Amino acid sequence: MRIRVVGEGPKLLERGEMIIYRRWLKGSPAPVGALVTLSDGEEDLACGLLDKIGVRVISFEPCPDSAEEAFREVIEKAFEAKSLLRYEAYRLINGDGDSFPGLIVDVYKDLAVLQSSSLAIDKHIMTIAKIVKDVTGAEAVAEKSSQRVRAKVGLPPREGLLIGNKKETVVDEEGVKFKVSIEGQKTGLYLDQRENRVYAERFSSGSKFLDAFSYTGGFGLHALKAGAREVTFVDEDPWALRVLRENLRLNNFDEGKVRVVREDAWKFFARSIKRGKSFEVGSVDPPALMDDYKDGYVRYVRAYSGAGSIIEVLAVLSSCSRSMDRETFVRAVHQALAPKYRILELRGSAPDHSTRMGLEDYLKTAFVYLG
Amino acid sequence: MRIRVVGEGPKLLERGEMIIYRRWLKGSPAPVGALVTLSDGEEDLACGLLDKIGVRVISFEPCPDSAEEAFREVIEKAFEAKSLLRYEAYRLINGDGDSFPGLIVDVYKDLAVLQSSSLAIDKHIMTIAKIVKDVTGAEAVAEKSSQRVRAKVGLPPREGLLIGNKKETVVDEEGVKFKVSIEGQKTGLYLDQRENRVYAERFSSGSKFLDAFSYTGGFGLHALKAGAREVTFVDEDPWALRVLRENLRLNNFDEGKVRVVREDAWKFFARSIKRGKSFEVGSVDPPALMDDYKDGYVRYVRAYSGAGSIIEVLAVLSSCSRSMDRETFVRAVHQALAPKYRILELRGSAPDHSTRMGLEDYLKTAFVYLG
Repeated sequence: MRIRVVGEGPKLLERGEMIIYRRWLKGSPAPVGALVTLSDGEEDLACGLLDKIGVRVISFEPCPDSAEEAFREVIEKAFEAKSLLRYEAYRLINGDGDSFPGLIVDVYKDLAVLQSSSLAIDKHIMTIAKIVKDVTGAEAVAEKSSQRVRAKVGLPPREGLLIGNKKETVVDEEGVKFKVSIEGQKTGLYLDQRENRVYAERFSSGSKFLDAFSYTGGFGLHALKAGAREVTFVDEDPWALRVLRENLRLNNFDEGKVRVVREDAWKFFARSIKRGKSFEVGSVDPPALMDDYKDGYVRYVRAYSGAGSIIEVLAVLSSCSRSMDRETFVRAVHQALAPKYRILELRGSAPDHSTRMGLEDYLKTAFVYLG
Repeated sequence: MRIRVVGEGPKLLERGEMIIYRRWLKGSPAPVGALVTLSDGEEDLACGLLDKIGVRVISFEPCPDSAEEAFREVIEKAFEAKSLLRYEAYRLINGDGDSFPGLIVDVYKDLAVLQSSSLAIDKHIMTIAKIVKDVTGAEAVAEKSSQRVRAKVGLPPREGLLIGNKKETVVDEEGVKFKVSIEGQKTGLYLDQRENRVYAERFSSGSKFLDAFSYTGGFGLHALKAGAREVTFVDEDPWALRVLRENLRLNNFDEGKVRVVREDAWKFFARSIKRGKSFEVGSVDPPALMDDYKDGYVRYVRAYSGAGSIIEVLAVLSSCSRSMDRETFVRAVHQALAPKYRILELRGSAPDHSTRMGLEDYLKTAFVYLG
């Protein structure tokens, strides 16, 4: 099916925009979810899926014969790109960044997890699941479309297995094993922090390490691998801590070196400051405070300043708030720690989280020397 | 000596600003280069060096007895921070980022190189050189204060050995040896790209690799280490290519795999496009085009688009223009390569290049998949 783009439409496509809103489409008799070739009347400019808001572009060429074929091309291309990284667990499709606006696909070795934020994609979810299985060789494919943005656009949450019946698996990340379960937060594991966890290893050897807001233990497990003297994990979610304990066993880490504290990390900071407890190296990776709270910025300053009070040498400070840009993040770090700090490195999400122009790197992680 | 800060001064110090301009100083009878404690009349707030523009803050505590003692504290603290990285070649002092605004110190194992952009620092250069030698154990200390910014503030260029008589050395960077000579550009080696060179290794194994604007061969040498099939170095500076050839010999790399092209990289791009030549992986790291040319942005787009025409899989695109922010950089990448590109990773300078708020990461390096 062919739809005419008018007004700014052709220019937006030329600039590589991946969502063309309805106002730039001339009539659109097709149903939501239809595969449509966008044309300026003379030339075919792109191929995409018709959604309520407009067209989600998936390629800048005319559409092939079927939606299935179109999806397969995009997914195969993404697989080719991600294969360069040789990860066992990776983000295969990162929305626009991988030419599939509205879709996230994470692959945990033999278990793939899809997340859709679009009605058009919802309609094709089984087709997509089958292609993902084919291309990646995953044994099972699950859906985890329960993120809050769906409610905002009037879509109900959807979760469950689409193919196969594997609900959990174990993946290896540079020598650390992680249990992944579709019952956890996000699609199972915070893949975006992967390279930052590995990077933090170089500072962790021999240290007394703190993993605050630990979830299933990403930073602390890598610290143990690197030879930390003692690692304290702090989280208030009993489910996450249960998985963390499984991870400790999976890796045969010496549990004598480990303290698992089930507590709100904020309370843990306050208590540690009061008692004069301290750590040499630590990660502080709170939830998306600025997306979730009106006073989110102030909360970040408080979290980082808590870190500065109990971490002596090197702090790994993260923010995953989409609404906090990099500059604001650095300002919060500065406000929390000035004058005594130096940012050694400022990093973003791992390379499997492809981006394009305008797609801000929502994850910001600073490696801060506090000595 | 004590100087009173007035007006906005105390607030600026509280915010951690490292240069307090003259307008916020009440009288300043001291000569340029004097060590002064800044006070708001009640409390001592900071210690710094009086310069023509104002005071360069080096600590937020009252001054110790002598300038020598003050410098020693700052330099020892920086050495402690940088020692965490265990680099043989590293930036010891990165201006404000290491609490010494106006001073750069690079250490290449046994040879340290200072760069001053301030009259106050010029006056203490021998004292600083001696402390650097003491703290780092360097055998020789050279000065390379010939950067353009000096001319702008009315300072003459200064170059030469301050201590010892070593003018060159060989350093090891994650298994690749580099000859460093104070006769080269900058202070001898582009240390800022260190981690990016190492990061690029993961994509280079088995590839036909291009190192455009290669200088003494940073990216290409790491590609050879990673097992590239063939590496082409392009630069027009005969001195840099001579050092590159020495580096090839130092590392015992198979010269049968190497092509060294002495040519302007722009001409090389044009010629390669014309002849349909291509590479699988490549680095394009031009000089600071946007700082140096009015049409710098357009030149970047041209360079990256040249890269996109002759590199097939993965391009490492850099910009070291201070006046180009990260967003503008990504826009240039997009304009050069859209629609077919995905940014896998966007990185900055290596962690020895400490930063603080407001100190933009001048180096931007995108790892872009083009397949």
